[in-house]
Amino acid sequence: MERGFGQAEFATRTKRAQALMAKHDISALLLTTEPDVRYFTGFLTQFWQSPTRPWFVIIPASGKPIAVIPAIGQALMNATWIDDIRTWASPDLMDDGVTLLGDTLTEIAGQGRIAVPDGHESHIRMPYADVKKLATHHSLTSDMGIMRALRMVKSEAEIDKIRHACTIAGTAFDAVKSFAHVGMTQSQINRQFQSACLDAGADNVPYVAMGLGPCGYFDVISPAGDITAQTGDILMLDTGLMWDGYFCDYDRNFSFGTPDPRAVSAYDRLIDAARAGLDAARPGAAAADLFHAMAKITGAGKAMEAGRFGHGLGTQLTEWPSFIPTDHTEITEGMVLTLEPSIETIDGRILVHEENIVIRANGAEKLSPFATELVVIP
Amino acid sequence: MERGFGQAEFATRTKRAQALMAKHDISALLLTTEPDVRYFTGFLTQFWQSPTRPWFVIIPASGKPIAVIPAIGQALMNATWIDDIRTWASPDLMDDGVTLLGDTLTEIAGQGRIAVPDGHESHIRMPYADVKKLATHHSLTSDMGIMRALRMVKSEAEIDKIRHACTIAGTAFDAVKSFAHVGMTQSQINRQFQSACLDAGADNVPYVAMGLGPCGYFDVISPAGDITAQTGDILMLDTGLMWDGYFCDYDRNFSFGTPDPRAVSAYDRLIDAARAGLDAARPGAAAADLFHAMAKITGAGKAMEAGRFGHGLGTQLTEWPSFIPTDHTEITEGMVLTLEPSIETIDGRILVHEENIVIRANGAEKLSPFATELVVIP
Repeated sequence: MERGFGQAEFATRTKRAQALMAKHDISALLLTTEPDVRYFTGFLTQFWQSPTRPWFVIIPASGKPIAVIPAIGQALMNATWIDDIRTWASPDLMDDGVTLLGDTLTEIAGQGRIAVPDGHESHIRMPYADVKKLATHHSLTSDMGIMRALRMVKSEAEIDKIRHACTIAGTAFDAVKSFAHVGMTQSQINRQFQSACLDAGADNVPYVAMGLGPCGYFDVISPAGDITAQTGDILMLDTGLMWDGYFCDYDRNFSFGTPDPRAVSAYDRLIDAARAGLDAARPGAAAADLFHAMAKITGAGKAMEAGRFGHGLGTQLTEWPSFIPTDHTEITEGMVLTLEPSIETIDGRILVHEENIVIRANGAEKLSPFATELVVIP
Repeated sequence: MERGFGQAEFATRTKRAQALMAKHDISALLLTTEPDVRYFTGFLTQFWQSPTRPWFVIIPASGKPIAVIPAIGQALMNATWIDDIRTWASPDLMDDGVTLLGDTLTEIAGQGRIAVPDGHESHIRMPYADVKKLATHHSLTSDMGIMRALRMVKSEAEIDKIRHACTIAGTAFDAVKSFAHVGMTQSQINRQFQSACLDAGADNVPYVAMGLGPCGYFDVISPAGDITAQTGDILMLDTGLMWDGYFCDYDRNFSFGTPDPRAVSAYDRLIDAARAGLDAARPGAAAADLFHAMAKITGAGKAMEAGRFGHGLGTQLTEWPSFIPTDHTEITEGMVLTLEPSIETIDGRILVHEENIVIRANGAEKLSPFATELVVIP
């Protein structure tokens, strides 16, 4: 697998953005977050972990994107397809890029409308005081969902990277049987699983969720603690590992010893539900249709109160849309999605099962190796 | 090392916030980001990787913080010291918590001022459309740097966690000599170093920066690529690994075989600079003083144009202040800081050296094991 993208990929993304911008009378699109900046530039770095510096990319009505960034990023941005890179010595405690950004916007957009992503799943990654300063001289309007619409549909090159991430995770999941055993703590298992992901070729492992307990677990967002695996426990590992800036996001459920029949039957229903989701996943369906296809089999009870039955996936662990009854987003070719049905077993405990797919002209292609049963760790 | 904090830690943090709020006539402090939410609640999860849901915590003028969060987080928030937890079924595409948040703010703050962190290094993590909606009914004002002031000074319990993260990284750095060799690619070294961090006890490794090349490297934010280590290369590994929600952030420089004398002499100057930074790091000094103490030895030339000579550290990889000539933040007891001088060697290549310290009444205590020379990998 080759890293990065050809210039044509970024040129296509930019042209698509500009076509939508024209439709909405937008003169410049202002982007501030890691996935949005990377989408148009290929600027890939873990340096976003540092909150110190703001980073800006402007999509003009025509021509290449313009980067307005801290000087520390110049060398890396120079290595991308971007030509117009304007830098300042950040952190500048008096004016951390706001004047440079404002001047650039004026130059690019004149009196035209400047749009920012402002809907669900978005935020503006710059200090609110600076947003307000910018808004006094420029009218910041909604991007009308342009970024969502663009990023939701993946190119073949993007799909290849996500498939590769899925393959890496598959190897790591296969390794669990050989290292996990009764008596290990959650955090020991978690650390060793992360190492297995790295051994299998992951660039990094930003996300591992896990559950552990008899017949299931109570939630899937708690950090790994010092609880010890017991015979009969179900272990769930859910990985968001990355390869070249793209995530996979699927899980596997294991049983330490012979599983409780109630766990087995619940899990079988989840397998069936994922299969039903797969069958429903085709162009023209709505996100809600996938929810209902899966919920019909699981029964959308307690396990669903807090969650959803899957979502988009790509440069972020979760992306638009959501498989919930109220999301009517149309499923289209090129969407990469997770099917993530969950079910209650006993006493408020749940099982969660997750797989990754991509939408093709006639249905869905599996990106993760669909599980067929609980993996027993003898 | 025990995980988590006692309730007294959170009660103290809250009381300190409330004292500063009273001083600035703030009736409620609204927090939306992972580090700020965790600071007052202890809510620790990797689930923030998902951009789907907003999370809110409100600090009232008196009493415990109030959580206004997606239902998926209820079980985990219930396990913290927070009592008043208000949830909604997120994602809600019509109203993703905004009405619940607004009603709660009205109940808590009445017509009083509601403050948000709005200065450098901050952002509001909720959709901009929702910020504007909230701002039509509530006057959102600046937190006047309250969050920065609070988080900048660490408790002993926090310092212990950072020290533990530093110790883990020390073990991982010691392991590099035994696995790194000429002929490995950057990304192989990077992956194996992450595994070494996990083996040594890291919960996760959100950040590894690296440099590789003869006499140094061109930047320290590029991702690990497929460049192969050659005899004579300098390898720099910089880790932001986490333990129980706290980072360490320091680096080590290695030499594959006998180092170039120019690299040795440049590195010796960095060691001296870090030592000078350590000596200058005491209560009453300004952040700029530490910069000047180090720059006097390195000469603040090309290597500094884009960067700084260190920064704060804690729940984030980098925190306030910055060691730059214009940052006059007073250094006080309990601050955890990195000393990070850099220097040009040849042809625009640089070396970067970094250590971690905590400010005590009479000076600084080392948290990382201060390096004394380039580590030679034979």
